[in-house]
Amino acid sequence: MARVLTPQNEDFPRWYQDIVAKAELAENGPVKGQQVIRPTGFALWERMVAEMDDRIKETGAENASFPLLIPQSYLSKEAQHVEGFAPECWTVTHAGGKELEEPVVVRPTSETVIGESMSRWVKSYRDLPLLLNQWCNVMRYEMRTRLFLRSSEFLWQEGHTAHATFEDAAAYNRRILHEVYQDFMENVVALPVFTGLKTAAERFAGAINTFTCEAMMRDGKALQAGTAHELGQNFAKAFDIQYLGSDGKQHHAWTTSWGVSTRMVGALIMGHGDDSGLRVPPRLAPVQAYVMTVKDGEGVSEAAAKTHAALRAAGVRSKLNDRSDVAFGRRAVDAELKGYPVRLEIGPRDVAEGKAMLVRRIAGTKTQVSLDGVTEAVADALAADQDALYAEALKFREDHTSDVTTLDEAIEASATGFARLPWDACGTEGETRAAASAVTVRCLQRADGSVPDSEDEAGLVALLGRSY
Amino acid sequence: MARVLTPQNEDFPRWYQDIVAKAELAENGPVKGQQVIRPTGFALWERMVAEMDDRIKETGAENASFPLLIPQSYLSKEAQHVEGFAPECWTVTHAGGKELEEPVVVRPTSETVIGESMSRWVKSYRDLPLLLNQWCNVMRYEMRTRLFLRSSEFLWQEGHTAHATFEDAAAYNRRILHEVYQDFMENVVALPVFTGLKTAAERFAGAINTFTCEAMMRDGKALQAGTAHELGQNFAKAFDIQYLGSDGKQHHAWTTSWGVSTRMVGALIMGHGDDSGLRVPPRLAPVQAYVMTVKDGEGVSEAAAKTHAALRAAGVRSKLNDRSDVAFGRRAVDAELKGYPVRLEIGPRDVAEGKAMLVRRIAGTKTQVSLDGVTEAVADALAADQDALYAEALKFREDHTSDVTTLDEAIEASATGFARLPWDACGTEGETRAAASAVTVRCLQRADGSVPDSEDEAGLVALLGRSY
Ligand SMILES: [Zn+2]
Ligand SMILES: [Zn+2]
Repeated sequence: MARVLTPQNEDFPRWYQDIVAKAELAENGPVKGQQVIRPTGFALWERMVAEMDDRIKETGAENASFPLLIPQSYLSKEAQHVEGFAPECWTVTHAGGKELEEPVVVRPTSETVIGESMSRWVKSYRDLPLLLNQWCNVMRYEMRTRLFLRSSEFLWQEGHTAHATFEDAAAYNRRILHEVYQDFMENVVALPVFTGLKTAAERFAGAINTFTCEAMMRDGKALQAGTAHELGQNFAKAFDIQYLGSDGKQHHAWTTSWGVSTRMVGALIMGHGDDSGLRVPPRLAPVQAYVMTVKDGEGVSEAAAKTHAALRAAGVRSKLNDRSDVAFGRRAVDAELKGYPVRLEIGPRDVAEGKAMLVRRIAGTKTQVSLDGVTEAVADALAADQDALYAEALKFREDHTSDVTTLDEAIEASATGFARLPWDACGTEGETRAAASAVTVRCLQRADGSVPDSEDEAGLVALLGRSY
Repeated sequence: MARVLTPQNEDFPRWYQDIVAKAELAENGPVKGQQVIRPTGFALWERMVAEMDDRIKETGAENASFPLLIPQSYLSKEAQHVEGFAPECWTVTHAGGKELEEPVVVRPTSETVIGESMSRWVKSYRDLPLLLNQWCNVMRYEMRTRLFLRSSEFLWQEGHTAHATFEDAAAYNRRILHEVYQDFMENVVALPVFTGLKTAAERFAGAINTFTCEAMMRDGKALQAGTAHELGQNFAKAFDIQYLGSDGKQHHAWTTSWGVSTRMVGALIMGHGDDSGLRVPPRLAPVQAYVMTVKDGEGVSEAAAKTHAALRAAGVRSKLNDRSDVAFGRRAVDAELKGYPVRLEIGPRDVAEGKAMLVRRIAGTKTQVSLDGVTEAVADALAADQDALYAEALKFREDHTSDVTTLDEAIEASATGFARLPWDACGTEGETRAAASAVTVRCLQRADGSVPDSEDEAGLVALLGRSY
């Protein structure tokens, strides 16, 4: 078969470009750095949204919608925040044919405008915790862009919460990190993630602590897949979010913010894709089973339609392709590219035998199955391949993560994967040195892999790597 | 009981302002005309999105995401389109601290940028129809704004499709009008709508025909709840959307676009709300049953929790309120304001008797029901009250719609509702005259109420009214 994609080991960035184009996932928009997410790519994001939204609501948060445009003066209210975001802003200066009195920026993130609402909504300890989330678009100016990974506009969810105490804020933020993000990434997207604390250098602008989920891509680089920030009282003080406590006194609230974006689609592509295309984990897949006619006639279309209906009735997300006006080989290559977990190919001989060919994208097998038992065979394959894809990604990560004792060794190991180095052997100075080789501390963990409360804990381990 | 809202018949606009604030639906954002949609309001929109999205996908359309920013030059490619939208645009002139080479506008609607994509995606008749939809935010500059009804930024879905023939485009567009919009509005939101054709004066900028769903609010005014446009070949020619036909020749495609926005929340409020607050139709309601403890102790919380769990297990969207730190009366008023279809109030005496008080927001009744049979009683109430709310809205509309024969009568009847006037007795000249009294032709229908193909059909009836 002619090669469809540049092989990963020949040129990984080129492979990525190829797959995004050929699987019809996304393309560039007319304005620099903006992207068009095509239906095949958007369906992946829609499934991610559904899975994350369920988990976010399970924690008690409610969705809302805040404005796209933010007065420039809002950003300036928190000193580190404006320093971090002002250079990245897209600015609206005119509307309705007239110049605006004050320029406004397209939200790069919404801590400020939501902080302003919170200051009006929070009066008493009874109003806390206030748990909000929104699904929206944000914009940040980027010089070099790559579809899904770094774009001027992206889609995301941003959660914003206010709490009565530091402890309550910290505990809720950890719940988001583990019960929402890590659970979603590992159990739905089938990508193992390292969770940990960002160093001061990598912290969100305005946060006191940033926690992260770091996934390994198939070129050994890290992708920051989600972050959850403890904002302390920084935004509560800047926006005057105060509550009357049960002690009869006014207190500033403690806030958090946390987000996962369409970068996650990039993580899915680079975390699981191979030289034939995407591999989508069954639990996430918008199309779990793809029922294809090999050619027309002899009851093939009828058998395919019946199989498709049976799968749907059994709760499988099935899609039917009986377009015999397009060559079978071309449709099969397209199915491989789009990474549908299982394919059922039905031709005249299959129908005669009461069978179908079950092609598993992840296991890489082709076996004949009886049309009578097809829904069970598909369900078994989907369950097994979800686990297999996770196990494969976990093994890849383990094979590409080294324990080292010096910074030089860490930088060397980062050429092909992650390095675990005692934080004492790195430190802020080591971070600066590593940066010269495009290596960064992805996060800090305790020796047992758990997430520390602060950088000051003794015996921390730094996870280093190159990153997207 | 102290009055919570300004009564509708005293001052309808004030009633609207009151309910939007007191039911915690939305408020103004910091930039002129922008809105914050609060969790209670957003949950209504989320349910609308879910119901419409199902119906849109049922027609074969797929979701995608197109850029927020559009080059100014794109708008100019279709002459009527730029004339209609350019004065309403919000313009971005700077990014990353530098002036842009070409100013870009925040999308007021996406025909142009999607047309540009379509021109690359459509090659052959095999690629048609191309059926796309996106859920997103858009911005239009507005001098006078009102929450949900007219805001500078709003949320909506915009569908964009390309077809091989005029007939296919027209048939699909009618399917959207009736099977998606009308079905959703009448069977979910419980608001009867008149469907018809817009006159040339009211047509979408760039369309050859605009079809509309017009709902009556409780002050007798019309609200345009959704529109579906036949764009002819205007955008296909402007953006060069061509396909190779089965005849071996190149043809321009025929396109459509169609949208429903967060205005629909305004329609819900003004179409069903009363002097106590919102009334949300059960099929739409994010909270269908609200289980409240009257006060603490004597097994009340346990009985409430058990009832809530039983309702959820039965598929009812139930919410539990056992906050005995807030006075019962205040919580009951809040439940009325938010329009939860049924309330189950449980106090110590109820528990002793194995009963609960079932309060129906739409029927206006309070009856004791046995806790054993509570899920059935709730299911029955929800089904009956969905129908009752629709019947009430339909009767209101019938009582406020008059058949008239002269324009003067039509203008007079429009003071309290709609007027049906032979289009021959109105015409473009009549439209201009009516406009002086703030009365417009909402749509044209055939004498039997069905939707005409064009303004040129004989015997059409014009529906006139004041509008939002
Ligand atoms: Zn304080
Ligand atoms: Zn032509």
